[in-house]
Amino acid sequence: MSAQTDADLEQRGIDVIRGLAMDAPAAAKSGHQGTAMALAPLAHVLYTRVMKYDASDPAWADRDRFILSTGHASILQYSMLHLTGHGLTLDDLKAFRQWGSETPGHPEAHTPGIEVTTGPLGQGFANGVGMAIAERMLRARDGDDATNHFTYVIAGDGCLSEGVSHEAASLAGHLGLGRLVVVYDDNHITIDGDTDLSLTEDEPARFRAYGWDVDEIGEVANDLDALEAAFDRAKTVTDKPTLIVLRSHIGYPSPDHTDTHEAHGLAFGAEDITRTKEVMGIPDEPFWVPDAVLAYYREAGQRGATEREAWESRNPNPAPLLPDGWADALPTFEAGGSMATRKASQAVLSSLADVVPGLIGGGADLTGNTGTQLKDMGVQSAADPAGRQIYFGVREHGMGSILVGAAKHGGVLPFGGTFLVFADYMRPAVRMAAISEAKCIFVYTHDSVGVGEDGPTHQPVEHIMSLRAIPELAVVRPADATEAAGAWKLALENDGPTALIMSRQNLPILESSSADAVSQGAYLVRDAEDADVVLIGTGSEVSLCLDAADALAEHNVTAKVVSMPCWEAFEAQPSDVQQAVIDFSLPRVAVEAGVTLGWDLYADQVVGIDRFGASAPGDTAMDELGMNVDNVVATVNELLTALAD
Amino acid sequence: MSAQTDADLEQRGIDVIRGLAMDAPAAAKSGHQGTAMALAPLAHVLYTRVMKYDASDPAWADRDRFILSTGHASILQYSMLHLTGHGLTLDDLKAFRQWGSETPGHPEAHTPGIEVTTGPLGQGFANGVGMAIAERMLRARDGDDATNHFTYVIAGDGCLSEGVSHEAASLAGHLGLGRLVVVYDDNHITIDGDTDLSLTEDEPARFRAYGWDVDEIGEVANDLDALEAAFDRAKTVTDKPTLIVLRSHIGYPSPDHTDTHEAHGLAFGAEDITRTKEVMGIPDEPFWVPDAVLAYYREAGQRGATEREAWESRNPNPAPLLPDGWADALPTFEAGGSMATRKASQAVLSSLADVVPGLIGGGADLTGNTGTQLKDMGVQSAADPAGRQIYFGVREHGMGSILVGAAKHGGVLPFGGTFLVFADYMRPAVRMAAISEAKCIFVYTHDSVGVGEDGPTHQPVEHIMSLRAIPELAVVRPADATEAAGAWKLALENDGPTALIMSRQNLPILESSSADAVSQGAYLVRDAEDADVVLIGTGSEVSLCLDAADALAEHNVTAKVVSMPCWEAFEAQPSDVQQAVIDFSLPRVAVEAGVTLGWDLYADQVVGIDRFGASAPGDTAMDELGMNVDNVVATVNELLTALAD
Repeated sequence: MSAQTDADLEQRGIDVIRGLAMDAPAAAKSGHQGTAMALAPLAHVLYTRVMKYDASDPAWADRDRFILSTGHASILQYSMLHLTGHGLTLDDLKAFRQWGSETPGHPEAHTPGIEVTTGPLGQGFANGVGMAIAERMLRARDGDDATNHFTYVIAGDGCLSEGVSHEAASLAGHLGLGRLVVVYDDNHITIDGDTDLSLTEDEPARFRAYGWDVDEIGEVANDLDALEAAFDRAKTVTDKPTLIVLRSHIGYPSPDHTDTHEAHGLAFGAEDITRTKEVMGIPDEPFWVPDAVLAYYREAGQRGATEREAWESRNPNPAPLLPDGWADALPTFEAGGSMATRKASQAVLSSLADVVPGLIGGGADLTGNTGTQLKDMGVQSAADPAGRQIYFGVREHGMGSILVGAAKHGGVLPFGGTFLVFADYMRPAVRMAAISEAKCIFVYTHDSVGVGEDGPTHQPVEHIMSLRAIPELAVVRPADATEAAGAWKLALENDGPTALIMSRQNLPILESSSADAVSQGAYLVRDAEDADVVLIGTGSEVSLCLDAADALAEHNVTAKVVSMPCWEAFEAQPSDVQQAVIDFSLPRVAVEAGVTLGWDLYADQVVGIDRFGASAPGDTAMDELGMNVDNVVATVNELLTALAD
Repeated sequence: MSAQTDADLEQRGIDVIRGLAMDAPAAAKSGHQGTAMALAPLAHVLYTRVMKYDASDPAWADRDRFILSTGHASILQYSMLHLTGHGLTLDDLKAFRQWGSETPGHPEAHTPGIEVTTGPLGQGFANGVGMAIAERMLRARDGDDATNHFTYVIAGDGCLSEGVSHEAASLAGHLGLGRLVVVYDDNHITIDGDTDLSLTEDEPARFRAYGWDVDEIGEVANDLDALEAAFDRAKTVTDKPTLIVLRSHIGYPSPDHTDTHEAHGLAFGAEDITRTKEVMGIPDEPFWVPDAVLAYYREAGQRGATEREAWESRNPNPAPLLPDGWADALPTFEAGGSMATRKASQAVLSSLADVVPGLIGGGADLTGNTGTQLKDMGVQSAADPAGRQIYFGVREHGMGSILVGAAKHGGVLPFGGTFLVFADYMRPAVRMAAISEAKCIFVYTHDSVGVGEDGPTHQPVEHIMSLRAIPELAVVRPADATEAAGAWKLALENDGPTALIMSRQNLPILESSSADAVSQGAYLVRDAEDADVVLIGTGSEVSLCLDAADALAEHNVTAKVVSMPCWEAFEAQPSDVQQAVIDFSLPRVAVEAGVTLGWDLYADQVVGIDRFGASAPGDTAMDELGMNVDNVVATVNELLTALAD
């Protein structure tokens, strides 16, 4: 093809993308065409001139990563995935936003060619930081022949307004992630109206303050060569992440809606589309994709095929995340001693560090406190790009989203630690991990009012149950050091995210606890013939239940005791296994140092804490708030008396 | 007293504060002396030279506000409150971090002189923005004679690292809050070690990018006149918030621990204290407060007394937040129609706007969508400081913390709206609202998979129950427009925070719904003699339950139907009222378009959604996920069959 033809085809391709960007929302009577239309040239440049990928193998490990952090513009990405041959059909585009389609309202990671699920603003941006960290670590560790790619992100004013982007951007600047390139789609429009209703900050200056390379390319949203040149330049900046600031015009080239906030989220009507297609000079025909345009993109879709094949011959057998026999490295703990589960967790991590080389992570300024130290594995930094310890700083939300991005990058097994009470700070990231089945591990320590003196702001009470409420998240609260090893085993074998809930305070290492049984979700730590009652505990309350069982025996009440480290694993068991663990024909009392909400599923009575905690030594706080043998015994006796009446 | 004596006394006072800052954590064997020691001169200057307050009336409405966003340094504030005569005794200081004390680990708003509960980093900073907004609005509305004060905040690197501070700082810069003065305690130390482990951004440049006035005063942490001059200067900057960047040395003047991260959180031992007191030249005597020093501070504590008295004579009868008869303005809605509860919520707010002049708020870039428009009440801005509409931008977390700060300021009744799914983004702020009984209203709309096409990232399923898990938070999900009015009434009458949960989609306005009954938490929308089953629904599922009851009647099954808009209100009812509403002797089925977790407390079976949603039209999503009459009827029939066996 001649250059002339190419340029024509490119423009026609962009017209086609803009047409699809209007047609699909119109068909769905729902969706966001405005940003997709404005950024059609940008997407075109990325997919035809910039990115390394092979549409025939969207999972190729060394592809460039692309994240649409402005997920509401999903139709832009779907159009590119269809045109370049990633597997989405025109019928998929026609099923935009319909039940069961591959083209949901926001990009979801199950669709081939979508790296991460996006939509909640700022998440994709921070995921990109995680991807760039994973890439750098793997490149340093395994060499350029194995890992050598870029991460591209499109973010909007909303993404940059969200706190999570601040946290991630600050860390990215600190780390000097040269392979991260973010395009800031500066369109001056939000849902409420013009951005200057609420946003007048100087973002380029802010990002320079973070240590980013900032390139204000201005009014070139339709200048393909200028866009390409910006990416070419950004790729030469190897010591800093780059923010390309692009002034775009939402809804362009609609004669009626360009630069209006209506263009953002109100699907165009038929007349809007007709008039816009007229401006572009393309047929007023829904989902119009001429053969020449399709052929052009399909060819572009193979632009990385040769590289991919070369890569595969260089890397015939990528190492699995979990080498054979990895679990043999799990430590065991001698019964009779006493150890905080956060300390046990650290011991487990230390034992696994050598055996599982993909483990990367650390704490949000609580590395020592949360037991998330990877000793002697180097500190991730420009000076030590292979470093596996990440000092996230006081940035829980950023940490969470970075873990998700790193997990979805692949090749690494990311973990991050903070106090359980601060799980709230990163909750949106945890939800995204669950939605997108990101295999990452959230280490939450200081798991109850047993935290003590720091008081109610630092004492979780509602957090464990609130995490259990999130679908597709495994929540594991081990009773002691032995179960802590089992908790890590469960987490590493889980396909999705896991929250590990660890104590600050020492807990007895039990004679009857089991690491292996954790994967069953619950098991008997004390069985008994002719039992009168079943006590069900988690974490620190399992030893309390055992003590209460001893005390009840003195009252001639026989109790079985169940440790229930993981509800989700228990609920996956067949009902006969469940019944064998928790005898539902017996009176049941659950004990957990948190809100009682939810426990009625398993228990007749619950000993818990339905209020905020209070500042006091941990033992005192636990005792004052009813986490003691007397209260458990009294609750059991009341229940048995009530049932006898 | 001569100047000489004053200077001596001032230095001795600072020594005393530093002594207390070591002694109290040492007594508790827990706590953070390092920052308190470093900032003793700063606190001294604030309480003796800068702030307008009268210790004898810590609740005086026109006092300057002081927020210790670095809440772990609480002993600094407690020491000042004791010395200046706010009511804390030396015994209170000796009870630092003990059960039931007025001196918990982090400042809590119930202690006189503490404005807001702080501890989780970044919250206090954002609360300060809320206080400054409230002050500016009231000053513009009521005049300088009524409201005329400053808000001072001490924040650390952790506060500035947290995303919430980015959001709040960006908005504060946009709004040009000239009465907000933040001291950035730049001590280069975090828990993990030196800040440069994870933080190398140029914070002053970042804050200038937000539009702040930034004053880098440098190494003057012990220079009282320089500190005072910085505040004097900041007060002259009336169009921008000011960030005073103070280089401090954590643990100063400890000869062993100055500038070490151990000084942050490890309580000094006896020898550390002895050596440090030796450096200061004060007796090695715990809780040493010489009379002259106490007298000096007690006098300073009255520095605003005359002003307060003058203010009180000018403002003899401050208006209450809720004028008599305000509830008469609540609209009613005609049964038989159909309206989204978010639309009804907007109608209620519009009706109340004139009658309740303290209502201020808006949406996080979803003002129209969430029905949080205060029409014709002006837009809060430098140009219209009396404006009551706040455009928060895409900043849910910042919005939440700003609402808390505004509520704790007093004089205003703040509300803020976003989609329910993004309640996660602001969850730490909601928790702080609950802990500190901040009377603010969170308006959460788009409350189920009924959101539709935006898909799982925008469809809440676990959120309602996760909010119910937070103690001291009222969660209200009205069934229709009528209940929406009742929900607002409950919220305005509630002493603490309320989350209003509203539908995106239209809901039938029911014949039997009641606004007044919302305050009871639950009530019968359909009673029946000889009922076979009780159906319990909330929100959009109440009309579903009524439809299911009709369908069940065709199967000769008689159902009562309960609408249960507010669990917390229901749980506050006496048991006979509860029993009259929900007949616990009958089989019960709960229906809610969210996770089933928790409902076992009230129901034998639950129709809910224990998975993430999916992109599809809202009706389709609801139907496919089992929120339909057939499924409710089948569940009831299965339950009745099982019970009959």
